[in-house]
Amino acid sequence: MSEDRITEQLAFLAEIDALKSVVRQSRIVDRSRRENSAEHSWHLAMFALVLADDETVDTARVIKLLLVHDIVEIDAGDAPMHGNHDSKEVEARENAAAERLFGLLPDDQAAKLSALWREFEAAETPEARFAKALDRLQPLLLNTLTGGGTWTENHVTEQQVHDRYGPTIQRGSPILWRQAQDLVRRHFSDANDGL
Amino acid sequence: MSEDRITEQLAFLAEIDALKSVVRQSRIVDRSRRENSAEHSWHLAMFALVLADDETVDTARVIKLLLVHDIVEIDAGDAPMHGNHDSKEVEARENAAAERLFGLLPDDQAAKLSALWREFEAAETPEARFAKALDRLQPLLLNTLTGGGTWTENHVTEQQVHDRYGPTIQRGSPILWRQAQDLVRRHFSDANDGL
Repeated sequence: MSEDRITEQLAFLAEIDALKSVVRQSRIVDRSRRENSAEHSWHLAMFALVLADDETVDTARVIKLLLVHDIVEIDAGDAPMHGNHDSKEVEARENAAAERLFGLLPDDQAAKLSALWREFEAAETPEARFAKALDRLQPLLLNTLTGGGTWTENHVTEQQVHDRYGPTIQRGSPILWRQAQDLVRRHFSDANDGL
Repeated sequence: MSEDRITEQLAFLAEIDALKSVVRQSRIVDRSRRENSAEHSWHLAMFALVLADDETVDTARVIKLLLVHDIVEIDAGDAPMHGNHDSKEVEARENAAAERLFGLLPDDQAAKLSALWREFEAAETPEARFAKALDRLQPLLLNTLTGGGTWTENHVTEQQVHDRYGPTIQRGSPILWRQAQDLVRRHFSDANDGL
């Protein structure tokens, strides 16, 4: 490692500190505040460490995909799930963000981290599909633990939860989607009892 | 994966959400607030992904050590570096925390994650020593980026920085310590110029 190389690496690591200030829609379990994208990324990496262990995917690779998957939000912002977005515009913003942010690294590592991010986005490898499933499962779990969370705030119905979370979780892990459906069913049944 | 197994795994993943509410002493780079241990763990995992790449350590293992290294703080709290602690008491609290928290997982995974945490604490393997070095390097970098941060707050001298950060960083990565010393020297020299 040359000094210049480490200087570039530390500049990148200082810059991505800003992910701690990107605020998502989900509330943390104690409901005191909304979650930021840096702690969300840690939580997802822990989901991978625990849940990928029983799957036929490369756990370490799933973890790496999840560690980098939200870094582009530093420039491009978080696109909330239950909102309307121009997907072409989001994609253009995120591509520019990836170029600037990963571009702070030495060239070989810029290529490597960009490739991880693109692999996650493309959702074609088993690891990327599983990582995407976890990225849907985690806010689903948080919502069931916080009285409905973003579902309640956005008047999202049980059917909409199935439509918006189901395909991605099912594609990455059918068994996790089966179990998630139980959580969703129980949540909406309790919510209806409370009316 | 059985349903009971996933239920235990999700209970653990819900419980460790609380790491997002454990507040550390370091400020995030924009100085708006102190850092929490969950986002700190993500940041460290990124340090590993970028910096371990050039070392002779198993990067994936360093990342796993860092993802779990602070989980015991959920019960035991963070022990600030520049404070006085009864280390026996901290150790007892952290052991009890590890038993309760990792104990929420299925037995095989409880053993696995406890082993990762103990490996980090023991700092005997090259991966654990490198992880420990990053856990010192990250707050050092944050302090140099936030006008001295916890050093200024606690009247820590340049010599004390060397004594408290040097041995751990040096032991995990001599080259990173050489570069960190430059950052420290520059920080204290600028600070003195400002007097």
